[in-house]
Amino acid sequence: MTMNLDQYFIKQQPYYRPVADEVELYEAAYSVRMPMMLKGPTGCGKTRFVEYIAWKLGKPLITVACNEDMTASDLVGRFLLDVNGTRWQDGPLTIAARNGAICYLDEVVEARQDTTVVIHPLTDNRRVLPLEKKGELVHAHPDFQLVISYNPGYQSLMKDLKQSTKQRFGALDFNYPQHDIEVEIVAHESGVDRSTADKLVSIAERARNLKGHGLDEGISTRMLVYAGSLIATGVSPTAASRVALVRPITDDPDMRDALDAAVTTFF
Amino acid sequence: MTMNLDQYFIKQQPYYRPVADEVELYEAAYSVRMPMMLKGPTGCGKTRFVEYIAWKLGKPLITVACNEDMTASDLVGRFLLDVNGTRWQDGPLTIAARNGAICYLDEVVEARQDTTVVIHPLTDNRRVLPLEKKGELVHAHPDFQLVISYNPGYQSLMKDLKQSTKQRFGALDFNYPQHDIEVEIVAHESGVDRSTADKLVSIAERARNLKGHGLDEGISTRMLVYAGSLIATGVSPTAASRVALVRPITDDPDMRDALDAAVTTFF
Amino acid sequence: MTMNLDQYFIKQQPYYRPVADEVELYEAAYSVRMPMMLKGPTGCGKTRFVEYIAWKLGKPLITVACNEDMTASDLVGRFLLDVNGTRWQDGPLTIAARNGAICYLDEVVEARQDTTVVIHPLTDNRRVLPLEKKGELVHAHPDFQLVISYNPGYQSLMKDLKQSTKQRFGALDFNYPQHDIEVEIVAHESGVDRSTADKLVSIAERARNLKGHGLDEGISTRMLVYAGSLIATGVSPTAASRVALVRPITDDPDMRDALDAAVTTFF
Amino acid sequence: MTMNLDQYFIKQQPYYRPVADEVELYEAAYSVRMPMMLKGPTGCGKTRFVEYIAWKLGKPLITVACNEDMTASDLVGRFLLDVNGTRWQDGPLTIAARNGAICYLDEVVEARQDTTVVIHPLTDNRRVLPLEKKGELVHAHPDFQLVISYNPGYQSLMKDLKQSTKQRFGALDFNYPQHDIEVEIVAHESGVDRSTADKLVSIAERARNLKGHGLDEGISTRMLVYAGSLIATGVSPTAASRVALVRPITDDPDMRDALDAAVTTFF
Amino acid sequence: MTMNLDQYFIKQQPYYRPVADEVELYEAAYSVRMPMMLKGPTGCGKTRFVEYIAWKLGKPLITVACNEDMTASDLVGRFLLDVNGTRWQDGPLTIAARNGAICYLDEVVEARQDTTVVIHPLTDNRRVLPLEKKGELVHAHPDFQLVISYNPGYQSLMKDLKQSTKQRFGALDFNYPQHDIEVEIVAHESGVDRSTADKLVSIAERARNLKGHGLDEGISTRMLVYAGSLIATGVSPTAASRVALVRPITDDPDMRDALDAAVTTFF
Amino acid sequence: MTMNLDQYFIKQQPYYRPVADEVELYEAAYSVRMPMMLKGPTGCGKTRFVEYIAWKLGKPLITVACNEDMTASDLVGRFLLDVNGTRWQDGPLTIAARNGAICYLDEVVEARQDTTVVIHPLTDNRRVLPLEKKGELVHAHPDFQLVISYNPGYQSLMKDLKQSTKQRFGALDFNYPQHDIEVEIVAHESGVDRSTADKLVSIAERARNLKGHGLDEGISTRMLVYAGSLIATGVSPTAASRVALVRPITDDPDMRDALDAAVTTFF
Repeated sequence: MTMNLDQYFIKQQPYYRPVADEVELYEAAYSVRMPMMLKGPTGCGKTRFVEYIAWKLGKPLITVACNEDMTASDLVGRFLLDVNGTRWQDGPLTIAARNGAICYLDEVVEARQDTTVVIHPLTDNRRVLPLEKKGELVHAHPDFQLVISYNPGYQSLMKDLKQSTKQRFGALDFNYPQHDIEVEIVAHESGVDRSTADKLVSIAERARNLKGHGLDEGISTRMLVYAGSLIATGVSPTAASRVALVRPITDDPDMRDALDAAVTTFF
Repeated sequence: MTMNLDQYFIKQQPYYRPVADEVELYEAAYSVRMPMMLKGPTGCGKTRFVEYIAWKLGKPLITVACNEDMTASDLVGRFLLDVNGTRWQDGPLTIAARNGAICYLDEVVEARQDTTVVIHPLTDNRRVLPLEKKGELVHAHPDFQLVISYNPGYQSLMKDLKQSTKQRFGALDFNYPQHDIEVEIVAHESGVDRSTADKLVSIAERARNLKGHGLDEGISTRMLVYAGSLIATGVSPTAASRVALVRPITDDPDMRDALDAAVTTFF
Repeated sequence: MTMNLDQYFIKQQPYYRPVADEVELYEAAYSVRMPMMLKGPTGCGKTRFVEYIAWKLGKPLITVACNEDMTASDLVGRFLLDVNGTRWQDGPLTIAARNGAICYLDEVVEARQDTTVVIHPLTDNRRVLPLEKKGELVHAHPDFQLVISYNPGYQSLMKDLKQSTKQRFGALDFNYPQHDIEVEIVAHESGVDRSTADKLVSIAERARNLKGHGLDEGISTRMLVYAGSLIATGVSPTAASRVALVRPITDDPDMRDALDAAVTTFF
Repeated sequence: MTMNLDQYFIKQQPYYRPVADEVELYEAAYSVRMPMMLKGPTGCGKTRFVEYIAWKLGKPLITVACNEDMTASDLVGRFLLDVNGTRWQDGPLTIAARNGAICYLDEVVEARQDTTVVIHPLTDNRRVLPLEKKGELVHAHPDFQLVISYNPGYQSLMKDLKQSTKQRFGALDFNYPQHDIEVEIVAHESGVDRSTADKLVSIAERARNLKGHGLDEGISTRMLVYAGSLIATGVSPTAASRVALVRPITDDPDMRDALDAAVTTFF
Repeated sequence: MTMNLDQYFIKQQPYYRPVADEVELYEAAYSVRMPMMLKGPTGCGKTRFVEYIAWKLGKPLITVACNEDMTASDLVGRFLLDVNGTRWQDGPLTIAARNGAICYLDEVVEARQDTTVVIHPLTDNRRVLPLEKKGELVHAHPDFQLVISYNPGYQSLMKDLKQSTKQRFGALDFNYPQHDIEVEIVAHESGVDRSTADKLVSIAERARNLKGHGLDEGISTRMLVYAGSLIATGVSPTAASRVALVRPITDDPDMRDALDAAVTTFF
Repeated sequence: MTMNLDQYFIKQQPYYRPVADEVELYEAAYSVRMPMMLKGPTGCGKTRFVEYIAWKLGKPLITVACNEDMTASDLVGRFLLDVNGTRWQDGPLTIAARNGAICYLDEVVEARQDTTVVIHPLTDNRRVLPLEKKGELVHAHPDFQLVISYNPGYQSLMKDLKQSTKQRFGALDFNYPQHDIEVEIVAHESGVDRSTADKLVSIAERARNLKGHGLDEGISTRMLVYAGSLIATGVSPTAASRVALVRPITDDPDMRDALDAAVTTFF
């Protein structure tokens, strides 16, 4: 089976608006193939950043949405039954290691702590991946790099990365962009004018102040783009905000009132 | 294997009685392919609404009743053993993504939190579904949309959607219809006259006031239609109410007395 | 594979002694294909009632003894390996839905809560059963009906039906029959005379008063038939009561004394 | 595959010393095919009794040592892969039901509560066993009977038979035999003289008084036979008692001293 | 498949130094085929004793290191897929029972309590092993015997043998040997002189007094042999004791100081 | 299948800077084939040490990253389906035992306690590995040795090695190197000058003092090499320290301030 690596290249430049020196730092880290960890809340642009970097570096990007059911075999590969008996099929991590792709493990903290140890030999100077079931030791392609995302707000006693995993990565912090940058992003992505985008960002900022005071998470940039998109189709800003910003994140009547009031303030 | 997509089209207009602007808002959301979340108690019409929308938009509808045993493979697909070895079979989510169907994940909160992360890449601007076991990256058909239902009353510490999932959806609230609309629905669906339907709705309204005061849930519109159907076959209204409204929802003697009294008041 | 449906028909009229209007109510419910729930303690005749109804309606009856290990596949079906690769085999629920049988899920509360959600699409107006693994949507045969049994005394925090399941069923209460009817049943089924049957029923009534005061359950009608059968073979009534009524339900010395005393009072 | 039923017949009369009317009661129960439950502590002769009964009735006996890992399939049967695809293989319960054997589920309380529900349809008047995976309904052979053993001392909140299971069985109590009968058994089975057997039984009686006062279980008849057998090979009675009676049941120094003292008293 | 039983014979006399009458008692137990249980702490010579006995009796020895993942199938056997379909393969317990080997279940308490019930029919007078999945009843070879090891110090509420299992075995206690015997063993096994061996045993005796006062287990005979072996290669006694006696059993600084002091006292 | 053992040899001398007599002690242990346990915190050089030893001894090294999902079969081997039926494939432990490799079980405490018992027969004088599923007893190659790593700081009630496992290993302690040695290592590995390396080590020493006072682990040698590598590409020392030393190990604002202050002190 020839691997169709072509599908993993990002063909068009993704829209990404840098907020600091994160692009330069990542490029330096890539140049020494340091494994990287992107920290930050949901919907603030981590995934978009990785796509932008992969496009900029011209490397294929293999993304894995981690989950608790994911076994080491889902990452590394397994034997499948074929007309001639069993046939080995590389998993996404192995494909990336063999072919020099960037492998992005999204929401890695969802994976079982102990599944994550399979990445350890790829993250120190050995840069190898033992396929124990196949009896093969894969030496990573020189272009291979591992990057993981991580939302510190989700840390709990039950789910956190082990120190022995964390210490194998350099780390970059991400957060919601500054007001003007976020306005620019929302306008660009949703098609609303800057004035409407400005109001949407202002609503989000109020909601973010409620995080930890009744809201588990604030309103993300992605949600603002959703609201803007509805407005751009002709939905009233109030209804769009209700559907895309308020209703999804809380069922608490008081929080809904507070958020609806914020919407009314600006629209 | 050619996919029999035809079976997923709704052939006849489902009876749906709009209660507000929910149809227009959903159509706007669909026009920008925003993933949608329908919130509300059991039996208030969420499933019927999705069927109506699919009929109105002329799109196939693939419904998945979520449950805790459902694995990512049940959604995405798996290899089956064939005469020539293994053969890949798309799961319902993949069928929907490839063919441009609306995919409805009913009672999504029943699925394991971490199974739900497989929908993430379909719900942001990437609109892709990685089939990791097959090594394929499915780009969603332009008509594809994801819609989930969610009963906030079932939230618990153990079972709730993750914020990073919630933030990927616009949300519409559903509830039991207003008195007159519900009377119209019950009469239309069960075949009883408006006067009988009016009494049934009044009984339900009393029961709904007991929610949280001894009843876990009130009497739903669907149960009223059941009771009406029995009456239409000649069963006495009292016996029909006992069988279809009271006995199913409580075994507590006091609650049964209270509900039976409400039945006697109206019939 | 041609389905041997014939084995599911009840060939001879089962002995069933109606206690109220339960037969008429069930027939009305069946005429509108309302899913039904039979509530009551163990051994009071729920299963016999379903067999009687299936015989009276002339429909095949497919019974499933639910248990915690039962997966959705056990109800719905699975792929089996055949000489030509995999072959789909319908589960009992699918067989019933396709062929218009009455499907009886006995002790449904034993099944994992989330396994039970597979019955939902069969219990509202859609009357469909999605075979997700096969990619087929089964539309239920017009004669198909679903009936479940449920012992409210077993409710616990861990095991109860979800409200969204309960609300999909009409419900009939069952209990031990009145004295004279139970005497008639015991005499008919075991072959003892009415006088002996009367004494056995009286012993049972004493034991039922101890339910919740040292006994988890009272003595059921089925146990009385067992005791009667032993007496009919020549075993002394005292020994028969000891073996069939007292020893099975308690190991507590005080409860055994109390029950043995009740036996001595009547024999 | 022709079933080798012959191996399940007891060819030689097992040594069994009746202690009361248990043989007659069991024969009456078998004559009406009442399912039976044998209650009593470990090593008191329940298994030997069942073998004796099977020999006396001239019926094959199929014994299943229940355990927590036992699935319904282990009892009922499963599909095996064959040169022509899958082939169904009956489990021990199905073999017994088809061929009219006595099926003995030993230590049934070890099986998962919910696995045991598969025996329910065999224990009421239906006497059927649904093979759900095969789509077959086995009607039990007229000679088939089910018998289970049960040690009430092991009851716990986690492991007990459900009332709805208990009520399907007649019950016989077993216990260690009276002094003289036990002496007779130990002498017969181990080959020691009656005087030595008498002393061994006396030691056991002292230990049984300690049950619940530091010992979980007393010394069983089986252990006395072990000790006697060692003595019969020439081992000193003291050493034999230490190895076969004291060391196996406790590691507590005080209990060992108490039991060793009892040994010294008699030998 | 012809069974290669030859590999299970002990070809050379293992070094075993008897400490009391344990060899004679075991031979008597074997002569009546009594199942045996060897009790004692880790590393005191239980495994070596079994090898010596198997050599002395001239019987093959099949050892199974029990663990929690071990299923009944791992002991009893399973069906494997072959070119002609499935083929049964005996597990180690079945091989031993068929061929008259001594079967040694090492650390049996590690196995799940309920897995151990499969050995019950082999440990009473039936001496049979039901292969339920194969539908075969194996009658044990006359030479077959079962022996298990058991470390009472590991008893816990979660992991202990059931009384109904314990009562099926005779029991022999093992412990660390007396001073002079242990010196003899260490000198013989490691190659150091008696004077050095005497010091090592003295260190161990001090550590064993700390058991339960900061140490979970004392220093075993096996560890002394390890330390002696290092000394025999030229490592200083202090370094050898540090590596082989102290560092392995504790990370507590105070306990390490106490043990290091004991080392310095003697070397 | 011929085993490609060649891939497991270390071809080039790994950089390893001894800190005490650990190389000599390990060589003595290897000469008597004593199983070894390497204790110490993450990132202090245990894995590098094993690679160096394997290179120095000229033996192949098979490394297994242990994890909780690892079954005994993952270590020992399993049957795979082949064109001629099933085929046995040795696991890494079996390959090592057969071929005389050093087998390194990294982070062994992650494996389930009971999986680790499979190594027991390889760690006493028997030096055998029973392949129970295959019915083979592998006698270890004379060159085979087992080595495990273990981070005592991760001990918990749930996860610790059993005493009966610990006692089968000699043990060597590892820790972060002394200041001058660590400077030498960082400079050599990252390519920065000694002055910069000195500052990085000083930052690490401050962080290590915070272990247990807000930090779970200190900054490891490996992290210093990462930071140095970034600096060598032209990234400012402050940014490199932020990305490689501070951000990865803590999200606590106060701890970040303290660590950032330490960075500013030296750069």
